[in-house]
Amino acid sequence: MPKLVDHELRRRAIAEALWRLADREGLDAINIRAVARESGWSTGVVAHYFADKDDLLAFAFELVGAGCAGRAERARDDAPDRRTALRAMLAEALPLDDRRRLEATIWFGFLVRAAAVPRMGEVVRRRYADWTAQLAAELAATGSPDPEGAARELIALVDGLALQALSSPEGMPPEAQERLVAGAVGRLARAIDD
Amino acid sequence: MPKLVDHELRRRAIAEALWRLADREGLDAINIRAVARESGWSTGVVAHYFADKDDLLAFAFELVGAGCAGRAERARDDAPDRRTALRAMLAEALPLDDRRRLEATIWFGFLVRAAAVPRMGEVVRRRYADWTAQLAAELAATGSPDPEGAARELIALVDGLALQALSSPEGMPPEAQERLVAGAVGRLARAIDD
Repeated sequence: MPKLVDHELRRRAIAEALWRLADREGLDAINIRAVARESGWSTGVVAHYFADKDDLLAFAFELVGAGCAGRAERARDDAPDRRTALRAMLAEALPLDDRRRLEATIWFGFLVRAAAVPRMGEVVRRRYADWTAQLAAELAATGSPDPEGAARELIALVDGLALQALSSPEGMPPEAQERLVAGAVGRLARAIDD
Repeated sequence: MPKLVDHELRRRAIAEALWRLADREGLDAINIRAVARESGWSTGVVAHYFADKDDLLAFAFELVGAGCAGRAERARDDAPDRRTALRAMLAEALPLDDRRRLEATIWFGFLVRAAAVPRMGEVVRRRYADWTAQLAAELAATGSPDPEGAARELIALVDGLALQALSSPEGMPPEAQERLVAGAVGRLARAIDD
């Protein structure tokens, strides 16, 4: 009888090792061998799931995006009104605590790498399209005249704030990030119930 | 008689070599030795001006910022009205052509590196403070109630758009970048003459 292997579980365990490594040593330290060592699997097992460093980073990037989208959905469901919902959804992509700071590190590290490796652009494009659709649905429900444009603007704003916060924490503290997002949401969602 | 050395000229020649190298081989290829080879100076001469790779990158980052600020000033002076001026100033930081794409590559490469190397944060903070002041002056002249907040929001928006455009050109083409910036300028500068 062949051994049963839970591939999804293995991929996740490998991803968690990658996560710990990125947190401790930065994105530059990520490669198949280092992730294998950290995860306790052999290089061969890791290489079975991921062809190279870029493949590993793309998987980590996708996980950050999916995690952020899931939390944004829950934040929306918990919010008392739509403006609060939008602010809470966007806050999931700001580096306001250690977990989100690590996520942002992986996110922007991947984006900068994708700028140099064209085949990665498609992973980025899809993730942003999904995120735009999620926010646009919420904005459409508020009666926004251009929900997609508003979603794209808010996403770019959040990315710009997050990147400044990561690279210059004193220049962009959490209060400033949240205040600027709240201002933009207020202007872009004028027709909102609250 | 001691030889006269034009230090500023040398630094610029080294910067131009760094620029060519970044364009051809990416930021990862930047180091003292490679820049020396590219510039035609000896490693010793380059090392006289720049202590290490981070020092070189900080210099390149400052040059991008200063070049962008100078062009923004000229664009402002040439614009027929303040709204056009703001759009033109911001467009200098969008990767709309090859030169600005290379500048953006250096810019974001440096920001992501600064996220991992805290002492670089101060270089980033100063550059963003200067850029904020430049835009805020223009916004203040339009009667904006919060010129600094508006400037910070526009800068973050432009950064977010630029980063998407670099990492996923098909997801964020030039027209989309310009349309989103124009929309934000329109909303943030309502009191404007035109």
